[in-house]
Amino acid sequence: MQQGVENADCLSLAAGLVDPQTLPVELVKEAADQILTPETGPFALQYGTTTGSDGLRDVFKDYLSELEDGSPLAASLPAGQIMLTTGSQQLLALVSQAIFNPGDICLVAAPTYFVYLGVLDGVGAQTIPVHTDGDGMCPQALDEKLAELAEAGQLHRVKMVYVVSYHDNPAGVSVSNERRPQLVSTVKKWSQDQQIFLLEDAAYRELHYDGPRQRSLWSYDDSYSRDEDQTVILSQTFSKSFSPGIRVGVGVLPRQLLKPVADLKGNEDFGSTHLSQNIVASVLQSGAYAKHVQRLIDSYREKRDAMLAAAEEFFTEIPGVSWLHPQGGLYVWMTLPDSVPTGFSSRLFEQATSVDKVMYVPGELCYPSSWEERPTNQMRLSYGVLSPADLRESMRRLAAAVNTVLAESAS
Amino acid sequence: MQQGVENADCLSLAAGLVDPQTLPVELVKEAADQILTPETGPFALQYGTTTGSDGLRDVFKDYLSELEDGSPLAASLPAGQIMLTTGSQQLLALVSQAIFNPGDICLVAAPTYFVYLGVLDGVGAQTIPVHTDGDGMCPQALDEKLAELAEAGQLHRVKMVYVVSYHDNPAGVSVSNERRPQLVSTVKKWSQDQQIFLLEDAAYRELHYDGPRQRSLWSYDDSYSRDEDQTVILSQTFSKSFSPGIRVGVGVLPRQLLKPVADLKGNEDFGSTHLSQNIVASVLQSGAYAKHVQRLIDSYREKRDAMLAAAEEFFTEIPGVSWLHPQGGLYVWMTLPDSVPTGFSSRLFEQATSVDKVMYVPGELCYPSSWEERPTNQMRLSYGVLSPADLRESMRRLAAAVNTVLAESAS
Repeated sequence: MQQGVENADCLSLAAGLVDPQTLPVELVKEAADQILTPETGPFALQYGTTTGSDGLRDVFKDYLSELEDGSPLAASLPAGQIMLTTGSQQLLALVSQAIFNPGDICLVAAPTYFVYLGVLDGVGAQTIPVHTDGDGMCPQALDEKLAELAEAGQLHRVKMVYVVSYHDNPAGVSVSNERRPQLVSTVKKWSQDQQIFLLEDAAYRELHYDGPRQRSLWSYDDSYSRDEDQTVILSQTFSKSFSPGIRVGVGVLPRQLLKPVADLKGNEDFGSTHLSQNIVASVLQSGAYAKHVQRLIDSYREKRDAMLAAAEEFFTEIPGVSWLHPQGGLYVWMTLPDSVPTGFSSRLFEQATSVDKVMYVPGELCYPSSWEERPTNQMRLSYGVLSPADLRESMRRLAAAVNTVLAESAS
Repeated sequence: MQQGVENADCLSLAAGLVDPQTLPVELVKEAADQILTPETGPFALQYGTTTGSDGLRDVFKDYLSELEDGSPLAASLPAGQIMLTTGSQQLLALVSQAIFNPGDICLVAAPTYFVYLGVLDGVGAQTIPVHTDGDGMCPQALDEKLAELAEAGQLHRVKMVYVVSYHDNPAGVSVSNERRPQLVSTVKKWSQDQQIFLLEDAAYRELHYDGPRQRSLWSYDDSYSRDEDQTVILSQTFSKSFSPGIRVGVGVLPRQLLKPVADLKGNEDFGSTHLSQNIVASVLQSGAYAKHVQRLIDSYREKRDAMLAAAEEFFTEIPGVSWLHPQGGLYVWMTLPDSVPTGFSSRLFEQATSVDKVMYVPGELCYPSSWEERPTNQMRLSYGVLSPADLRESMRRLAAAVNTVLAESAS
């Protein structure tokens, strides 16, 4: 991506950053001022605990109850099963270190969050894709894949299923309401002899623009209401809904994972930034956070609409192009004709970045499969950073690049 | 330690915490207010880079030059070899993950920082103690140990030597000026065929109360001035000298470690708290940090003096007791008669925590050797948290407990 980054006049649809315009500068300043008094300041500037501020964990528990309206699990969750991390990335990394031995298997949606594929690679896990469509990972496909692995004597190596459950990165797809309990029960069905965890990455949960809110996959794991081992790891973050730079992620952990993950985190850093945790607790408790999220939603909805309108305007005429209409998150997933590869070494990537001055993420980066099996004609287009006007302009440029490549291949 | 923690009237000489009274609440508030403006706030609240804020790395480089007066290495150090982490703990953990395979060997001072022993255990490294006295790790003993390992065909497994170079945890000992270059050259001497790193943990560097300041071991690694592999990893932190709760550690990495460590950190968390890094850069640049450190030094010197005076007052009469006089840091290291074990299950520990109401860290926790080989009659006494008056009272209680145990064993 160096090409695009070094190119100042290149408009980037590639970065997964949040919009700098809507970062809560004033809110954080107010919260910091409130915390940094002679009474409460020393506490925030001292070491916290490895698993994080009790204050924030208590407040988060209440907040989770709201998000899960209807589910009793959040209300009865012991705050000790909540862990605060350096962004949700650290939670993903720590649970992966705790769960996988080299050669173990993780089943993942396809496409999926490519940074997590790197984490899995780092712990030596094999990744196996599970068929995924506009309703998210397909429970029947998951069941069949697990049956296949059992048949092959490989079930004991399967340690986790990874799902980005809301408006996922890269495709903007959410798991449908119908599939949520099905995914949980399918994982439990194949966990009779040994534990398979379901890692629910809910990073984009709160960036939800249309339609009714959904309960988490976690809320369907009724083992949390019983005195037994639990299946779903819920990972959330304040990076997308508030600020990535304060690095506050939060996870709900099955109780059998608490000690191994806390031990790893103890060795890793003794705990994440206590000051940031106090800031988040303060805005959550005051209600300022909820108001901020509502403003964010309004702003990102407008940007999403701008990108979809521009897609309509510039791509409808190009045969063989389609794209998904996300109800939240930061990404539009676009598929080009088979004849137009999008990878870093493709003609399109060169034309887009060097001539038309627009950057995107090649879709092939987001697949767990071997390179030969990956679709090569897709793109992740982020509307997080650019203004509506720049989004339109970048989509115009991208369409121009696609048209150039199509014209070349036709000639 | 649960005993002491649950005991509200127990005075703790155990916690390695910094003094809450001198935490820079007002300074952090001012810095946060300066940063959280519409112009600069969005930058601080956005993702930074994995290796940390360029601003802080540049300012730290200048600060390191000051600390190393006389050494040209800091002035010519590329800022890209500086990495910002979640406290120095994360730096220690990441370099250990990058360097060690299970079964590899780390040579360490004895006693040494016991938390790092846990990190080494976590990556499967063996630890081998090197003779250490009041001038720090003994270079000749290091040389002999390495010769022994070479003789035994084990040199290829030795990957690192770990030294807390200033006012160490637990003994308050600094490596003498004479030994600093000797330790570096000894490690280099045995690194001809394969790399041995020297990890210099300089966490207590700035808490220096008496005598001339010392250059780091790192400053003697002249490979930093040449186009070749480098030996010393320098680890520093703002936890002791500023605030643990903002979690800002900083390391200087040999260039051949940059990519492996940055890759691990990328998987782990994408980078530590950007807001905290901006706060530290602001106070370093304004000079407020230097003034704060001077105030800290004055305050801790007074507490150290109070503890040493109380040791004099209450322990001089007890035969067979001795203690070191630290010139900095947070700890006094005390040795009792051989007949008074200090461990968690000892009579002294019970008497001290349950009857006399005072807590300490048993010295035997701080040794890498097997349990049978560890001295059992030492204690780490921290003067970080308590006031001078409470320090005197806790030393009075501790002496009372020791006297009780001695009287029992005499009867």
